[in-house]
Amino acid sequence: MIIIKFETDYQEGCHPRILERLSQTNFEQTSGYGVDVHTERAKELIRNIIGKPDAKVYFLVGGTQTNTTVIKHFLTPCEGVISVSTGHINVHESGAIEATGHKVLALPSHDGLIAASDLKSYLESFNADPTNEHMVQPGMVYVSYSSEFGTLYTRKMLTEIKAVCEEYGLKLFIDGARLGAGLTSDSSDLNIQDIANLCDAFYIGGTKTGALFGEAVVFPNPDNLNLKQFTTLIKQQGGLLAKGRLLGVQFETLFEDGLYLQLARHSNVQAIKIKKAFTEKGIKFLIDSPTNQQFPILTREQNEELSRNFSYELWKPLDDGKLAVRFCTSWATTDENVEELVRAIHNL
Amino acid sequence: MIIIKFETDYQEGCHPRILERLSQTNFEQTSGYGVDVHTERAKELIRNIIGKPDAKVYFLVGGTQTNTTVIKHFLTPCEGVISVSTGHINVHESGAIEATGHKVLALPSHDGLIAASDLKSYLESFNADPTNEHMVQPGMVYVSYSSEFGTLYTRKMLTEIKAVCEEYGLKLFIDGARLGAGLTSDSSDLNIQDIANLCDAFYIGGTKTGALFGEAVVFPNPDNLNLKQFTTLIKQQGGLLAKGRLLGVQFETLFEDGLYLQLARHSNVQAIKIKKAFTEKGIKFLIDSPTNQQFPILTREQNEELSRNFSYELWKPLDDGKLAVRFCTSWATTDENVEELVRAIHNL
Amino acid sequence: MIIIKFETDYQEGCHPRILERLSQTNFEQTSGYGVDVHTERAKELIRNIIGKPDAKVYFLVGGTQTNTTVIKHFLTPCEGVISVSTGHINVHESGAIEATGHKVLALPSHDGLIAASDLKSYLESFNADPTNEHMVQPGMVYVSYSSEFGTLYTRKMLTEIKAVCEEYGLKLFIDGARLGAGLTSDSSDLNIQDIANLCDAFYIGGTKTGALFGEAVVFPNPDNLNLKQFTTLIKQQGGLLAKGRLLGVQFETLFEDGLYLQLARHSNVQAIKIKKAFTEKGIKFLIDSPTNQQFPILTREQNEELSRNFSYELWKPLDDGKLAVRFCTSWATTDENVEELVRAIHNL
Amino acid sequence: MIIIKFETDYQEGCHPRILERLSQTNFEQTSGYGVDVHTERAKELIRNIIGKPDAKVYFLVGGTQTNTTVIKHFLTPCEGVISVSTGHINVHESGAIEATGHKVLALPSHDGLIAASDLKSYLESFNADPTNEHMVQPGMVYVSYSSEFGTLYTRKMLTEIKAVCEEYGLKLFIDGARLGAGLTSDSSDLNIQDIANLCDAFYIGGTKTGALFGEAVVFPNPDNLNLKQFTTLIKQQGGLLAKGRLLGVQFETLFEDGLYLQLARHSNVQAIKIKKAFTEKGIKFLIDSPTNQQFPILTREQNEELSRNFSYELWKPLDDGKLAVRFCTSWATTDENVEELVRAIHNL
Repeated sequence: MIIIKFETDYQEGCHPRILERLSQTNFEQTSGYGVDVHTERAKELIRNIIGKPDAKVYFLVGGTQTNTTVIKHFLTPCEGVISVSTGHINVHESGAIEATGHKVLALPSHDGLIAASDLKSYLESFNADPTNEHMVQPGMVYVSYSSEFGTLYTRKMLTEIKAVCEEYGLKLFIDGARLGAGLTSDSSDLNIQDIANLCDAFYIGGTKTGALFGEAVVFPNPDNLNLKQFTTLIKQQGGLLAKGRLLGVQFETLFEDGLYLQLARHSNVQAIKIKKAFTEKGIKFLIDSPTNQQFPILTREQNEELSRNFSYELWKPLDDGKLAVRFCTSWATTDENVEELVRAIHNL
Repeated sequence: MIIIKFETDYQEGCHPRILERLSQTNFEQTSGYGVDVHTERAKELIRNIIGKPDAKVYFLVGGTQTNTTVIKHFLTPCEGVISVSTGHINVHESGAIEATGHKVLALPSHDGLIAASDLKSYLESFNADPTNEHMVQPGMVYVSYSSEFGTLYTRKMLTEIKAVCEEYGLKLFIDGARLGAGLTSDSSDLNIQDIANLCDAFYIGGTKTGALFGEAVVFPNPDNLNLKQFTTLIKQQGGLLAKGRLLGVQFETLFEDGLYLQLARHSNVQAIKIKKAFTEKGIKFLIDSPTNQQFPILTREQNEELSRNFSYELWKPLDDGKLAVRFCTSWATTDENVEELVRAIHNL
Repeated sequence: MIIIKFETDYQEGCHPRILERLSQTNFEQTSGYGVDVHTERAKELIRNIIGKPDAKVYFLVGGTQTNTTVIKHFLTPCEGVISVSTGHINVHESGAIEATGHKVLALPSHDGLIAASDLKSYLESFNADPTNEHMVQPGMVYVSYSSEFGTLYTRKMLTEIKAVCEEYGLKLFIDGARLGAGLTSDSSDLNIQDIANLCDAFYIGGTKTGALFGEAVVFPNPDNLNLKQFTTLIKQQGGLLAKGRLLGVQFETLFEDGLYLQLARHSNVQAIKIKKAFTEKGIKFLIDSPTNQQFPILTREQNEELSRNFSYELWKPLDDGKLAVRFCTSWATTDENVEELVRAIHNL
Repeated sequence: MIIIKFETDYQEGCHPRILERLSQTNFEQTSGYGVDVHTERAKELIRNIIGKPDAKVYFLVGGTQTNTTVIKHFLTPCEGVISVSTGHINVHESGAIEATGHKVLALPSHDGLIAASDLKSYLESFNADPTNEHMVQPGMVYVSYSSEFGTLYTRKMLTEIKAVCEEYGLKLFIDGARLGAGLTSDSSDLNIQDIANLCDAFYIGGTKTGALFGEAVVFPNPDNLNLKQFTTLIKQQGGLLAKGRLLGVQFETLFEDGLYLQLARHSNVQAIKIKKAFTEKGIKFLIDSPTNQQFPILTREQNEELSRNFSYELWKPLDDGKLAVRFCTSWATTDENVEELVRAIHNL
């Protein structure tokens, strides 16, 4: 029997329209490294959707490259990046940030989110510390939207964080590996223009929302950001694709008629069905997520039962012997598979 | 009028069979990061073709990542990598090697190649230098096959370089971004097993030989190479693809029935036709290349004339006012386009 | 009126015998970079005192260089160093460890010390985590003796930590910036041979125990530690002194007849007098330190009063409005100054 | 018999007045890390002597730290530092520059000096290269005064280099490890104010001119150089001395009444006597140096003869079997030792 996989949101290829478009454009001859009409058009589409005609847009292959490149760009050698302790850059990037010479300064997690008040008191303490000349200087803040736990900053929370950043002269960078899931959640009170208005840089994750791969970094207000060498830095960090137009073609497809948000919304819809099934069964969650990642807490027996036909990620063994697990949906998650899972949950 | 492009070997997409295969496998659900059946099969095919059942094979997205990852893996913090001065890592990777903390130790170029005798005298001088404890320690040698100038090491040359490496305890790494073009050149006296036997690591370039992207790093004799953390290092260097199976599917397609070498041979065949045309016209070359990159020396007038219908790379202005340029062919270069170019050359 | 300073243990120059010896040897001609008879003799004295004739000893100028050099030596590019959160490398070295590419993996502080049980559960969790290939690999443990809070590992605690390190294949490095104060505390149950037996590397801090500057790194069992390039690494990290014999002369003086421990003991004796005075006054401590750093908790009024004639470090404002401060003594702290301070405490 | 050493200019301790001053100030209590009256006064003396009241002055322990710190400060992650191929940072600092992530871009040596014309054509070629976005960006120029071969830029040469730097937006940094020997050479047409006027940063080497150790970095025009985090960077690079006043005391002594230049002049005077002796003997030089390093070319027999009583550095074996060697004098080189050497040369 085939196991149905809910492990991650990158377990299938890409949306068929992307493959079609890659086929249609396959024999076009273009210059490399993103100097081509598809890349230009994709940038234009993104500038339009965020409403910032002067924004700078860059395409990179993957998320680790994107995070290291943006962070390395923003920081001086003595500065570090502030992140929630559970942030991807602090946990799951193999020390890629430190490999560029920078410390990740971790703040406590509130369901995967930074609290503006924590940020402010960290910065106040830092400034009040007479020994701070011997410490890593806070240079920027990194947040994820949606977060590694599927949770979302509200407009109020993000506005407060941005205000603290401005008060203390820090850049704010939003990791949008799962931006689509965040923006299309029923719980979200932010749209992509808001995101662009509330940060110094963000990226639009393609890998987890229908592309084969690819992330679009956006600097909404590029003045004074000294981006002249940014393409060179992307190259240095290993993020510059030789056949750059592959990124252009994919983001063109995703952004020319709303496919991106449509696919993201689909992943949330499927996740909420699963959430509902667990809730109806009286199963609690580690975290209340309104997006495509769900973290139910299973007994060992429930886990054994579900594991027969489904795979998902073991998130964390809990002290009471139960297991927090993660079910992840994507643009490609079918109704059939969700229904089968829902049935299995009901039968637990 | 459309300009026919001979600028690079990555100006088209990929071989249609790869797109087909990506379509066929698109909705398969696999784990991420290269833990999937396609990646496994691709590794197996490569191990078979090189005749090393214990070889370790890793897939990365692009060449810069591959070079930095392998070099960072092999070197201690005090060691540098020896390269010909014209080597890609010394010139065109935006300082990516230095960004990992390592110096590139440049040797003189002989048409893009290192001479074993130069290598040996460099190492002898280094060892004889009483101040060498304050110098970057030579830790490995980097060569390209085919080289950045399209030239090729002979079996004898590479065997000698390997012997010097062994004598001085250096690792030898072959950048195979254009391995296919090298192996399938009429001038080559090496096959892929030879390559595997003559180095500690090499990579098989996919990007320039029919793939959308992707490079396969091979450690033919992995014992004592301490590869336990190599996947983590790939991740740290930004080379680990989330949807890793895309690399697996591509290399499966390229290696299951000889497509890889067939495509590479095609690029050489097309290049040699162009070479012949220039030669017949009495046009000299900057370098005598037997592979898919050709470096004719044009007068300003010839350049102006050819530029009307063709694009190619301006390589280097020469002292006599002429221009060395580069024509590059690929797996996708059509007979029609070559014929049109050949006609234009004859009409110069 | 002159303020008497108890701010740090490096506010005076050096023990007069060191200056004498520097004068006596001033016009000797020696080779640079530690290739001289004084350095050789100092190494020999240290090897003798720790009872390890095969130990390797290196002298560096300062503590930051020493920590970065040893840590960079021990770790692979994917590994990080485990430290208590309050450890010097995690807080007060300006990101010097991250600047070498490595993450500091912080464990909770128990009065400035790591608990072996915390270390073990961290490592167990790490090994059990299915995603750990994407995480910084634990490569070594860093502890300070005495700690940044003046506290001490017992023989039992350090033996347990060493056992965990061995079980998990981690190196153990002891920062001995204040090793003397640790070893000569009445609360210590370890001598310098024990230290040498319980770690893979440690350093003997000169700066804070009578030298102008200088730290002696010791690898008690250098086999298999691959130290061939260690001097080159010291140079790369900026720790190799041109006039290396200055370090040799200082450590000769400190170790030829017990001066080092005698000076360290003096600093503890003076600190304990101060501790006693605070205790008698009913003043509590942030931490119960048995060495030359004392952390009394003062009311704002007490602080104001003492600040008139004495300077010391403001450590941390507490929630109840009181202030934790640090009084630090050294080899140079005079009886007169301590008596004056004790009087002032009694008069609070 | 005792060998008289002419190996380096750091083979003795320090000028006796420095030791005296260290003794006099030994029991003063000062804050650490350069926050003390001696350091302040030394900075003031240096600002006065260069005639730049707003200059910023920092003291570091040694030259490698100084070079890495200044270079790391000036460069963005994608930039490299241009140096003559024989420059100290390119040869003898164990890859310390690369360890901070930056490439050294080497230009040809003209007796140890960069030619402004070479610099200009390098920059013109770079700017004309259509692929330069994939290359290390030139960010600054590093020159040594006096050079590693004892040679000197003239005012005209340095002015031209500065003009090219300004034209191309590069910073100019002068390594003054042997600044004193340069400034006090009879061949020099530059004084220390000129140096300050012709660069963005330079350092005054103490180690080789009478100090125990220590280098003073000067930013003559600190506006727009963003130096706010420079002390933190010194700490990160391991160059911040705990007992910072030791540097202050030494530079006070060297600069309060002209001792620095007096000692430097002495070293040149002694070297020129030796140069004269070789010249009179008909012995040629590898390079015509007007400062404290002399590079005579000896036959094997001459070398054998001189080696009996003198030590000096073997610089380079020449193709004709002769040996280029280096004799180095310093502030401490005695008339007696020079006379003995001169006699031995005459007797060859």
